[in-house]
Amino acid sequence: MNAKDAPNPSASLVALLHGPDQPGLVARTSGWIYGRGGNILHADQHRDDEAGVFFQRIEWIPANGGGADAASFDAFARSLDMAVETVWTGEVPPVALFVSKVPHCFHDLLARWRLGEFRGKLACIVSNHRDLEADAEYHGIPFYHVPVDRSRKAEAEERQLSILREHGVRLVILARYMQVLSEDFLEACGCAVINIHHSFLPAFAGARPYHQAYSRGVKLIGATAHYATAVLDDGPIIQQDTIHVNHRHSVGDLVRRGRDLEKSVLAQAVRWHLQHRVLVYGNKTVVFD
Amino acid sequence: MNAKDAPNPSASLVALLHGPDQPGLVARTSGWIYGRGGNILHADQHRDDEAGVFFQRIEWIPANGGGADAASFDAFARSLDMAVETVWTGEVPPVALFVSKVPHCFHDLLARWRLGEFRGKLACIVSNHRDLEADAEYHGIPFYHVPVDRSRKAEAEERQLSILREHGVRLVILARYMQVLSEDFLEACGCAVINIHHSFLPAFAGARPYHQAYSRGVKLIGATAHYATAVLDDGPIIQQDTIHVNHRHSVGDLVRRGRDLEKSVLAQAVRWHLQHRVLVYGNKTVVFD
Amino acid sequence: MNAKDAPNPSASLVALLHGPDQPGLVARTSGWIYGRGGNILHADQHRDDEAGVFFQRIEWIPANGGGADAASFDAFARSLDMAVETVWTGEVPPVALFVSKVPHCFHDLLARWRLGEFRGKLACIVSNHRDLEADAEYHGIPFYHVPVDRSRKAEAEERQLSILREHGVRLVILARYMQVLSEDFLEACGCAVINIHHSFLPAFAGARPYHQAYSRGVKLIGATAHYATAVLDDGPIIQQDTIHVNHRHSVGDLVRRGRDLEKSVLAQAVRWHLQHRVLVYGNKTVVFD
Amino acid sequence: MNAKDAPNPSASLVALLHGPDQPGLVARTSGWIYGRGGNILHADQHRDDEAGVFFQRIEWIPANGGGADAASFDAFARSLDMAVETVWTGEVPPVALFVSKVPHCFHDLLARWRLGEFRGKLACIVSNHRDLEADAEYHGIPFYHVPVDRSRKAEAEERQLSILREHGVRLVILARYMQVLSEDFLEACGCAVINIHHSFLPAFAGARPYHQAYSRGVKLIGATAHYATAVLDDGPIIQQDTIHVNHRHSVGDLVRRGRDLEKSVLAQAVRWHLQHRVLVYGNKTVVFD
Repeated sequence: MNAKDAPNPSASLVALLHGPDQPGLVARTSGWIYGRGGNILHADQHRDDEAGVFFQRIEWIPANGGGADAASFDAFARSLDMAVETVWTGEVPPVALFVSKVPHCFHDLLARWRLGEFRGKLACIVSNHRDLEADAEYHGIPFYHVPVDRSRKAEAEERQLSILREHGVRLVILARYMQVLSEDFLEACGCAVINIHHSFLPAFAGARPYHQAYSRGVKLIGATAHYATAVLDDGPIIQQDTIHVNHRHSVGDLVRRGRDLEKSVLAQAVRWHLQHRVLVYGNKTVVFD
Repeated sequence: MNAKDAPNPSASLVALLHGPDQPGLVARTSGWIYGRGGNILHADQHRDDEAGVFFQRIEWIPANGGGADAASFDAFARSLDMAVETVWTGEVPPVALFVSKVPHCFHDLLARWRLGEFRGKLACIVSNHRDLEADAEYHGIPFYHVPVDRSRKAEAEERQLSILREHGVRLVILARYMQVLSEDFLEACGCAVINIHHSFLPAFAGARPYHQAYSRGVKLIGATAHYATAVLDDGPIIQQDTIHVNHRHSVGDLVRRGRDLEKSVLAQAVRWHLQHRVLVYGNKTVVFD
Repeated sequence: MNAKDAPNPSASLVALLHGPDQPGLVARTSGWIYGRGGNILHADQHRDDEAGVFFQRIEWIPANGGGADAASFDAFARSLDMAVETVWTGEVPPVALFVSKVPHCFHDLLARWRLGEFRGKLACIVSNHRDLEADAEYHGIPFYHVPVDRSRKAEAEERQLSILREHGVRLVILARYMQVLSEDFLEACGCAVINIHHSFLPAFAGARPYHQAYSRGVKLIGATAHYATAVLDDGPIIQQDTIHVNHRHSVGDLVRRGRDLEKSVLAQAVRWHLQHRVLVYGNKTVVFD
Repeated sequence: MNAKDAPNPSASLVALLHGPDQPGLVARTSGWIYGRGGNILHADQHRDDEAGVFFQRIEWIPANGGGADAASFDAFARSLDMAVETVWTGEVPPVALFVSKVPHCFHDLLARWRLGEFRGKLACIVSNHRDLEADAEYHGIPFYHVPVDRSRKAEAEERQLSILREHGVRLVILARYMQVLSEDFLEACGCAVINIHHSFLPAFAGARPYHQAYSRGVKLIGATAHYATAVLDDGPIIQQDTIHVNHRHSVGDLVRRGRDLEKSVLAQAVRWHLQHRVLVYGNKTVVFD
């Protein structure tokens, strides 16, 4: 399943950088690119006045038409005391989808992938159950059944890591994957892991958030897409949304209505991440949308 | 400042009842009213299937054109094992507004009152500061300055209670009143107290919720109108809403943007309460909107 | 593909009625049901004060546990001068999906059907193209390719009508079906036809609404689910929604972002219709949600 | 009533420019500013790929700490074939509010002005009625009663123009002003005129939009803030929003609920305009928010 992405027909370089604010940063980064014949497509910056930090996303077509300038720009940005990551959109990152039994985010992402909504290649599907295997096969995507036995979790994670390595995975999406990944796994996988949590975090972290919401009598339910970290449901938030509910809604209704939120919030976060629009800074994100 | 409310030109009886579900409740309550010549304007019911509880709001114009049937209906509903409260909309309940220095909810409520959005009479304004006194006077509403000294809080609350009694207040609105009311006060005041909290509860309860939200990096801020109870920010929720924020918003921006939420959420909760649409059940509400 | 619908495990009768308002209607309909041993699950009514019309949706489990009371209730309601339609939820209505090439609403509805979100049986798929045939087959739903040649449209509609008759279809969903159905077809099909239009009607009726929206520079795009009538994009509206857009969004972005709206708005309208919650009145709808 | 605006404590230059796209524009504008010792606070650009047009908003603190560089930057931008307008935020633009009898936008804007939400000075209030005169006086803002007699409209507009000239007004806000301004007035006033229309334009342009919406049976109502042009309700749109309504809402309810939309949409548009964030391009706007 290959990626198409209409708004970006030709390949470009995209840099995300941040560091201590200083005069002239916008002029110097754009000047560096212009001076080498690059054509800037987008340049978006943000200044955290309180912390004195400068953030920038800059996208350009280099004069030579290839990704070779990435390393040079990184070196230049570091000389300005910036942390930086520059990617070449001509390379399509392989993505792994982790699922369990709940199918709605899985089906929604597949349908979007077929429509070309994501810059990335859906390389493989990993699941601790076989429920979605036939669907994966129908779509022609490799499916790996990796059961997770509580007492032998490390073994399962070893198997998962080896699958990720085999496919060169650059992003893991937890599409309602009902297992907590260990800190070891998150370090070893060497790439971003995006999770969808079915509440408006930090409210109702942990298990069964719709039951928690029902019990508290809230008038809105939410969904949160965030980067997975060692602390459960506490990673940097990428996107959130809510919808109104009322006393007529049973827990089952919250589950059903929440599915629509989970699908759109997760898809939006994945889309932004794959467009290299999300910069993590401390436990927060800057999203250049 | 007197109330007008366009959708209810003539006075009616409104009953809120709930109790163990049993067959025939809809038929029996409507039959009772019809049998006495009453004209039912609205009848809305809800059944909590899990708990086996029946809830109803029923509004009717009695044959005799007065509020005398309220007590008879209450007796009838109790004979069905229902908890019930019936009000006569011909009586306009006096309302007290508690404020501190922050003016936006205060101004918004005043402007809405002048437009007749609420069924109720704005009887008095109580504040621990004098900042809004001139505005209250301009609008012709009695203003009481009751400073709250931490060491003599009980004394201040005594003064507040006496003001409420003097005006026969049936509802207290805490319009960004920056003091916690004691459990004693809440019991003694003998009427509902509606508070507006500037977060999507249960997230960010307590002090400085916008600072908490900023620090956590959420992508939505919220506001919650709820009945005040002895446990801070934990009472039954009446209404909530959220809006999107992003990394460009400083804490000051969250404060500013949150004001719009606080105003509309509080006004909606007050409006519903004064229309006798909110039934408290455990720590939750059923809102017949 | 069979329907499951968690909130309504046991079958019930659902009546939608409306007619001239008169005292005692709530008491009389509920009394009729109670008098025959029926157990009312929901009763929701609305009064159009201006037009003097009473509307009601009432759902009950009859004493005999079957659908036989439907005709009796209809006769009773007609004796009250009401137009009425009562259905027995024990019968699962067959539904036809009309599609062309655009797949998102099609995939979304299929995924929801598999999750049991709709009270209805997806009986067949009709398309003027073959693009979605393989997907239909994978899901085990009969697929009919009925090409529509402009000069022989009546012939194609004859073929479509015969498919609907063969499956006993009670609802047609136009899931981005890119052909206008004739007035003759709409009369002959003998059932409701729900269409999704990709704008906030009445703005941008007709062809290419996202191009129209882009050209006008609106800051919101919308979607509208409505019953198809002889006048294009003018039938009774069931549901609508909007999302914000800005100058950064190309027409392609509007198309992509609008898909999420179209999916959720259409699904909601279908769900309500199949729960017998939508009462058409003139060119408007009363939705008992 | 003077303006405060927390996020911009010290004065800056803000340029809005647009013109044919060409390589190096970001580098050249930022380089020009940096080369003169300016400190860029924000730089936001947009490229209309289809039309080949470049748009930019750039805000900076000039080295000399005054507004003198505005003219030099304008000359420079024009040398790049750009249309440009640069303002010095140290100058506070006088604003006129036009009102009739409907008070909600008027009261809302006054309350926001007192909270410092707008960069601008509320210089005067002009009305064809006296209803809001007392409120204007209480807030200490000059109030001009200019009755508009249909047969002598030109005379009234002459009077209005002379008031605008007297106060050096740079922005006119039509806060539910119930008169159409002539093309002559719009040309002669020499400044932007922002209107709030109580529908989601282009739906329901013209008179009584809530009645139109009710009659059509839409499930959302909206509000639109736009620049007034010679064609009624057809000018460039700055901001829009919608809320859900249902069959229970009478026209009176739409009017009441729409007020909340009108207030927030108008205030947002005014805020953006006064922050020099709105660039008009053809009949559309680019809003650098």
